[in-house]
Amino acid sequence: MTQQEPWRGKRVLVTGGCSFIGSHLVEHLVSVGAQVRVADDLSSGRLDNLSAVPESAWEFVRGDLCDPRLAAEVMRGVDVVFHLAAIHGGRGFIELHQAACSRNFVLDGVVSQAAVDEGVENFVFASSGCVYPVDLQADVNEEVRLAESQVGPPFHADGIYGWAKLMTEQRLAALHAELGFPSVSCRLFTVYGERCPESHALTAMVGRAFLRQQPFEVWGDGTQIRNWTYVTDIVRGLVLAGERVHDGSAINLGTEEPIQVGQAARMILEFTGQADTEIKPLPDKPTGPYNRVASAAMALDRLGWMPEVPFHTGLKRLTEWYFESRQAERMTTDEFAERLTTR
Amino acid sequence: MTQQEPWRGKRVLVTGGCSFIGSHLVEHLVSVGAQVRVADDLSSGRLDNLSAVPESAWEFVRGDLCDPRLAAEVMRGVDVVFHLAAIHGGRGFIELHQAACSRNFVLDGVVSQAAVDEGVENFVFASSGCVYPVDLQADVNEEVRLAESQVGPPFHADGIYGWAKLMTEQRLAALHAELGFPSVSCRLFTVYGERCPESHALTAMVGRAFLRQQPFEVWGDGTQIRNWTYVTDIVRGLVLAGERVHDGSAINLGTEEPIQVGQAARMILEFTGQADTEIKPLPDKPTGPYNRVASAAMALDRLGWMPEVPFHTGLKRLTEWYFESRQAERMTTDEFAERLTTR
Repeated sequence: MTQQEPWRGKRVLVTGGCSFIGSHLVEHLVSVGAQVRVADDLSSGRLDNLSAVPESAWEFVRGDLCDPRLAAEVMRGVDVVFHLAAIHGGRGFIELHQAACSRNFVLDGVVSQAAVDEGVENFVFASSGCVYPVDLQADVNEEVRLAESQVGPPFHADGIYGWAKLMTEQRLAALHAELGFPSVSCRLFTVYGERCPESHALTAMVGRAFLRQQPFEVWGDGTQIRNWTYVTDIVRGLVLAGERVHDGSAINLGTEEPIQVGQAARMILEFTGQADTEIKPLPDKPTGPYNRVASAAMALDRLGWMPEVPFHTGLKRLTEWYFESRQAERMTTDEFAERLTTR
Repeated sequence: MTQQEPWRGKRVLVTGGCSFIGSHLVEHLVSVGAQVRVADDLSSGRLDNLSAVPESAWEFVRGDLCDPRLAAEVMRGVDVVFHLAAIHGGRGFIELHQAACSRNFVLDGVVSQAAVDEGVENFVFASSGCVYPVDLQADVNEEVRLAESQVGPPFHADGIYGWAKLMTEQRLAALHAELGFPSVSCRLFTVYGERCPESHALTAMVGRAFLRQQPFEVWGDGTQIRNWTYVTDIVRGLVLAGERVHDGSAINLGTEEPIQVGQAARMILEFTGQADTEIKPLPDKPTGPYNRVASAAMALDRLGWMPEVPFHTGLKRLTEWYFESRQAERMTTDEFAERLTTR
């Protein structure tokens, strides 16, 4: 194994590898020569997502990683772990299903313990922008750049989903400080791209455009800001983190490009030839914090990472993928409505 | 079953039932006619602690409740759970072993999930004063009365031990709000009494008096304040909470009597005929927050609970018990030193 090819022959476990982000990560790892094992319970992931990856290049284990026996089994012989599995969904899911999200305390604890017991070379944890204090993200008129040091304590994470991510970061930091266990937490910010489900805002809006909804619904008042970050940029950041950081640090992976939901809606309507459609805000729907944008300074410093895909480009790719795939499966309006708040 | 005898015939699970507090709880529950099952891995609990309870009155299961199969097994047929099991120790342990304490995220999640799956009548969670913001507990010149509403968010719990307690409270509240799961979290404040191990400050000091240590060591500068709460008062509070609260609330169980560590040391030295001994502060040792006292108002309001055992009385009982038991086992100075920071 050369430094030029750090992943060739590495035995890599990707938990949640059949998910939107997980499947892009698996594709990449296989392309750089890793031996990939995917563990997924298919509660939200889909085997379809990995249909482009040659079957000989990866191994699949289906099951619930809250079970310590299964976690130990899938960990056996693994060099590096990417722990992406989570009880997760879009905004509608994580606000309305906090009890379900609290299972992540167990999931993360069991998976990380199995990694400690196995003695892996590195444990890359998919954390989230949801760890940041919600009061720093309330004002759309501020220029927000959430920097790693701003998390606290005191802490004020975004829902139990965010608390579980934050507590796992804390556990990993303690495991490094007290036992030398190698890990890095990557705080992912509002990831989007091909295979992102309708429970997430951008795909939901593309779905409405696909259905030619009139008036075109937007959750919240449309002014809320996100730094949507394209999935291949995220994958590159996760992999760099896995190579370069082992000290239990937490590092943002997110662009510094702020986009308002209303802007994104307009772009989608333009892409799809519906520029004149009226937008109807639904202010009572869950939106999360109104202004969430990462600082990418630490990622540049420690990983040499910068996002490469501008929002306009990524959104166009998402839109094109969505129209192709949903035309093929003939999604109905009822099916679409259900997908908005389920996982 | 009459309302006068709410526990007669109840099938009750006490996790961590061989511990200091757990064993007092089991004694009480057996005395009021409950059918008690104790689950304990004996990592810090001792079967000895239950030697006064008739064997026919309780059932013992030994094992690690992080294992969901074991948790499901011990939960079978249970009406009410008292979940006291935790990776815990005194101040020395919880400050120096944060990674170990982070296992409580799994332990609490697995045990509470088993209770949800079984559909128990109530789940009484032993939470802690460690959930309160540490910055409210810094000044010994303030009159501190930590009230339930002061926890946050934002949150600033006391170490990963405190964070795990707080997160389990949050999970239980969400389980009630979303699924109607019945529970109550009791925030225990610095419990003491017979069978309390040397890892806790008061017993440590009684142990030093037993060994006639000169000069007499006190961790910290001796001004730090706690509201030590006697174990039978705590047990009464837990049982009342189990009877009366099912809505996922968190309620303090702690006295409003502030005692300084130096005062407690002086009392112990007086009880043991060593009033003239010089006290030597060890300012570099772990102390935790300097001023922790509960408000007991909500416990009075919702449980009709007030502490009954004044500090002077309880400390005398602890001292007498300690001298009797350690004389019997002939504890050495080395054994004592080790007990201060282990579980």
